[in-house]
Parts: sequence; C-alpha cells; structure tokens
Amino acid sequence: MRQQMKEILVGTRGKGLVEITDEVLRWIRSTGIREGLLTLHIRHTSASLVIQENADPDVRADLERFMSRLVPDGDPIYDHTAEGPDDMSSHVRSALTATTLSIPVRDAAPALGTWQGIYVYEHRRAAQSRRVAAHLIGE
Amino acid sequence: MRQQMKEILVGTRGKGLVEITDEVLRWIRSTGIREGLLTLHIRHTSASLVIQENADPDVRADLERFMSRLVPDGDPIYDHTAEGPDDMSSHVRSALTATTLSIPVRDAAPALGTWQGIYVYEHRRAAQSRRVAAHLIGE
Amino acid sequence: MRQQMKEILVGTRGKGLVEITDEVLRWIRSTGIREGLLTLHIRHTSASLVIQENADPDVRADLERFMSRLVPDGDPIYDHTAEGPDDMSSHVRSALTATTLSIPVRDAAPALGTWQGIYVYEHRRAAQSRRVAAHLIGE
Repeated sequence: MRQQMKEILVGTRGKGLVEITDEVLRWIRSTGIREGLLTLHIRHTSASLVIQENADPDVRADLERFMSRLVPDGDPIYDHTAEGPDDMSSHVRSALTATTLSIPVRDAAPALGTWQGIYVYEHRRAAQSRRVAAHLIGE
Repeated sequence: MRQQMKEILVGTRGKGLVEITDEVLRWIRSTGIREGLLTLHIRHTSASLVIQENADPDVRADLERFMSRLVPDGDPIYDHTAEGPDDMSSHVRSALTATTLSIPVRDAAPALGTWQGIYVYEHRRAAQSRRVAAHLIGE
Repeated sequence: MRQQMKEILVGTRGKGLVEITDEVLRWIRSTGIREGLLTLHIRHTSASLVIQENADPDVRADLERFMSRLVPDGDPIYDHTAEGPDDMSSHVRSALTATTLSIPVRDAAPALGTWQGIYVYEHRRAAQSRRVAAHLIGE
C-alpha cells in the first residue's frame, strides 16, 4: 500500500462549473496506483467541489441559475461584505455543496458513473485561481 | 494494511430514502477488516447518499417534503428537461446533499452514532436501480 | 502505512459553529503520521461538519442567519416534532451540509487553505456534547 499527493491548479471564469475529471484521471495514471481511494479537497471557502452530469451543458447552467436564486449575492441579511456582494453568498454556497470528495479508484480511474464528471464550482463573480489538494492511496 | 472494494446495488421506489446500513455492515464483516476507513460513492447524479436519523420514519418523510418544496420538480427556470420535470431538480438535490461519504470503521462496523443510518436518497419519481461503489481500507 | 483513530468530544452552545481545527491538528501531531489522509465523521444527525472562513466571525453569524431563514424551526410541514421545533429543522440542516470530511495531510497538518477552519455546526438551540470520530492513515 502506498500514497501519492498533488496540488491541482484550476483557473475559473466567474460563477459556474469547471470540469477537472481529465486532469484527475491523468494524475492517477501517472502514479502507477491502479486500485485505491482518491480524495479531493478544495482549499478555499468561496468555491466547491461537485460531481455532476457531464453530458448536457444546460445542467451546469441550470444548477447555477438555481443557486443564484437560492443564495443571491448582496442579500441584506449579511454583515460580512468586505469583498463585495458575492463574498458571503460564496461562503454559504460552499457550505451547501461539498468541500471534499472521496472516490474509489478501479483500473487506474475514479469509479465514476457514466454521466458523472468532477467539477470545481466557482462562486465568485471574477475569475480565480483555485487549488485542489489531491490524495491517492492504494496499490 | 489492505483494501477491499464492492459495488452495492440498491433498488429505489421513487423519491425518498432507502436504508443500506445493514448491507454495508454485512460486507465489512465479510472482508475480515476490523479497523479502517469506509468510503461510499453513489455513481449517479440524480440520487445521493445521506446519513440520517434511523428511528422515526417521519424524519425521512419530512426531509423529502422539505426538499420537494425547496427544489420543486418542473421549475420554469430549467432548460434541461430531457427526462421530464424531475430531471434537473434531481441534479440540484444531488448537489445540495452528498455524493460521497467516508466513515471510520471500528470493531468491524462503521462508527455511526446510535441514531444514524446510511441511506440512498432517490430524487427521481420512478423506481431506479442504483449502484454504490464501496471501498474499505484497514486491517 | 499505518492508521490511528480517536473520538473528539466537542461542547456546543446552541446554534452556530465551534472550531475544532487546533484540536485536530494537535491529535495529528501526536500520532507521528506526517503524510496521509484525515477523515472526520460527526456521529449525530442534528449537527454537521463544515469547513468555513476562519478570519471574520461575521461569516459564521451570517451563515447561521441564512440557514435559520432557509430551514426555519417550527416549520408547519414537519410531522417529526418529538424533541421540539428545532428537531426536524436540525435533521434537514444536517442533510444540506456535511456529515463527513476527508482532508489530505502534509507535514503533519491538514492541507487547509489559509482561510479555512474545521467546524462543528450545531443545529439545536440548546448546548450539546458532540462526538466526532477521527481517522488518520499515512506514514
């Protein structure tokens, strides 16, 4: 049994999902570990990790539309507005989605379903550079 | 240290929770691993994994009632309606709940609290056959 | 490769976040494991685990204000009211946030971002004693 770690850098383009499935897959293959457990942790509190449908881009647009209505920017109940109207709403979205994901690895690939992709979900309006800590244990 | 993997098949009966605690427990016992880490990953984007109260069935009914109000089927903001009014709402519910869970294992059982059960949460209206990838590492 | 387990006891003071980052860090250091994977699992269905901003306390107050509006106590749609108006709302909040977290460990510390802290999120009105099962694997 052995382990590998990597930090994956992801450029985002404002609110919405950026797929990282291929980058994760390439990294797993580079480690030589074929069976094991993959863990991803996004090192920010205004962006998330989600596993979502990877076929129809409308799914990502609809998810963002739903979240923008549920957790609107500039909500007057917030006191924490230091970085603007999308600051606190990003922290709330982060709490309602996922910061960490753990996925079994089989045959050197995450055991994703046919329609599943791994995404960084950006909650800020501006483009950001995000860091995802990745850990793989197995053999 | 060693690891085991299994795919658990779960039949659902429309929107609501299906408990899988016993099946997970039986599998852990069959592996001979007594101390370690269990990871579950549901291989779908219209069903989730949740840990919820296992005593009063009203809890599961109330949770479903809340989610049906928060994320109604047929919401006019959605463009992705290929599979019907419960298609996109299922993806949103999936993003708001959990796709993966990791639970420490002690004495050959998940370290659940007294009132905790592990559930597949079905978000589609029709019965489905769901696959959960399970990984166990330990000794 | 080796593993360690611990149960962390956390006293809460009614609805809101209680930071446990330092206690987790001290435990990791005490194990001698420097590189690996940390998993936390809260053994309750009316409290959660969240990773949130650790700088401005307004963030935690704003998050609680948002959740109190989204999932109000005493919602008339609930049948499960055995333990009072904050009973079922706590279970719903638990489903919408996280019960388990997995974080890579580097240099004997969780690979948290600069502004990230690990919190127990209490959803009940009264103070509670909460148990978090912690698992660490690595070397």
